[in-house]
Amino acid sequence: MAYDATLGLVVDVLGDELARAHVLVEDRHKQPMGLVHGGLLASVAEALGVRATAAAVAAEGGAARGLSSQTSFLRPLFGGTLRAEARRRHRGRTTWLWEVDLAGDDGRLCALVRVTVAVVPAPG
Amino acid sequence: MAYDATLGLVVDVLGDELARAHVLVEDRHKQPMGLVHGGLLASVAEALGVRATAAAVAAEGGAARGLSSQTSFLRPLFGGTLRAEARRRHRGRTTWLWEVDLAGDDGRLCALVRVTVAVVPAPG
Amino acid sequence: MAYDATLGLVVDVLGDELARAHVLVEDRHKQPMGLVHGGLLASVAEALGVRATAAAVAAEGGAARGLSSQTSFLRPLFGGTLRAEARRRHRGRTTWLWEVDLAGDDGRLCALVRVTVAVVPAPG
Amino acid sequence: MAYDATLGLVVDVLGDELARAHVLVEDRHKQPMGLVHGGLLASVAEALGVRATAAAVAAEGGAARGLSSQTSFLRPLFGGTLRAEARRRHRGRTTWLWEVDLAGDDGRLCALVRVTVAVVPAPG
Repeated sequence: MAYDATLGLVVDVLGDELARAHVLVEDRHKQPMGLVHGGLLASVAEALGVRATAAAVAAEGGAARGLSSQTSFLRPLFGGTLRAEARRRHRGRTTWLWEVDLAGDDGRLCALVRVTVAVVPAPG
Repeated sequence: MAYDATLGLVVDVLGDELARAHVLVEDRHKQPMGLVHGGLLASVAEALGVRATAAAVAAEGGAARGLSSQTSFLRPLFGGTLRAEARRRHRGRTTWLWEVDLAGDDGRLCALVRVTVAVVPAPG
Repeated sequence: MAYDATLGLVVDVLGDELARAHVLVEDRHKQPMGLVHGGLLASVAEALGVRATAAAVAAEGGAARGLSSQTSFLRPLFGGTLRAEARRRHRGRTTWLWEVDLAGDDGRLCALVRVTVAVVPAPG
Repeated sequence: MAYDATLGLVVDVLGDELARAHVLVEDRHKQPMGLVHGGLLASVAEALGVRATAAAVAAEGGAARGLSSQTSFLRPLFGGTLRAEARRRHRGRTTWLWEVDLAGDDGRLCALVRVTVAVVPAPG
């Protein structure tokens, strides 16, 4: 979970229909204007969708790999805790699709991310 | 440039039509299967598009903020140097659009990212 | 509403938080393999998001114009009635964002579309 | 090619790396403000990417189906001829990716569309 650790991502729920994670925002997550960097929002959503899919298909010998992500930035976030909630919208044989809401301490949406994940055979 | 430093992003070219950056891939950029994390690819593209726009509009008192990004993951990347090249495809009054190609040492595409950036008045 | 008429789009609900429309699928909506053409799904979602935004901002002298749409095709649709339901996820000063679910007679999702709409001054 | 005929789509080039099509814009392609409807732009790009992929894989017993499309609307188009040019950016075993530029008579971009197409076994 190296990259997730680099970001400080904490996974709180990892179900096959709902997943949640958060990041305690620090200066290292920000861009020069003092806002949380958009790349962090995209990364958190991607991580959550892929990890939730991976956890769900592991028992059947599957693994998960990101296929695409679409991020819409809605409001700037300046600090506090970034919270992500992923809801699964599609469970196909080879792809799963998650919609991820990202919000700050006031609960208002700061970004929406759609994450499509491929289910592949686990290596080895 | 705090988040960019967290990622190890190095900007090589920052023009108003073309921008280039690279990251020397380390273990901290990877996910558990040993691949470069998709969030890094999205982050690098986002950073490059926003920074190139910001640099171009600064002289006129403008600043830049990400509006959206769409990432398609094409091939896994396992190490070496991740290189990003952003070409500007649209320069509107309020939004710029960049298409960013991401590739590894063999020059083959590993991801495509479309980044839309808002041009806003610089704060203060 | 010329293009909407070309498609046979019928709007059923046009609120500022929820909108619904349907199309009775005919052969002219299909591609050679007998499936409903993906372009119809994208068109219906785009039309619904733009028209719902336009209706909501008309009283204040606003008009609406599509900025972007992201469509994920989940299941093929072969006939019957295509139903679209758009939920507004963001209402900003200059942009609104809708997530549109598209389904067939069995109620299962056949596509998801995220539509971003600009609010602009009405011409004239 | 029923839906393509509904739209008046004319395919000019259908190669496995480049494809081109056009539509002579009529009133039935427009929305109430007199602009070409965004759904037409998304439809033309989708049709072109899927048809070019289908043509390329037919000899090996393959067929093509749209997986996703991402459209960014850049400038309004009011009439004349809409021209689409699709360049293939990825040719994988199971998915192809096309980037489609759409422009009017003045040659300026009015939209960019990224189309991802699945290669599947031909039915029957």
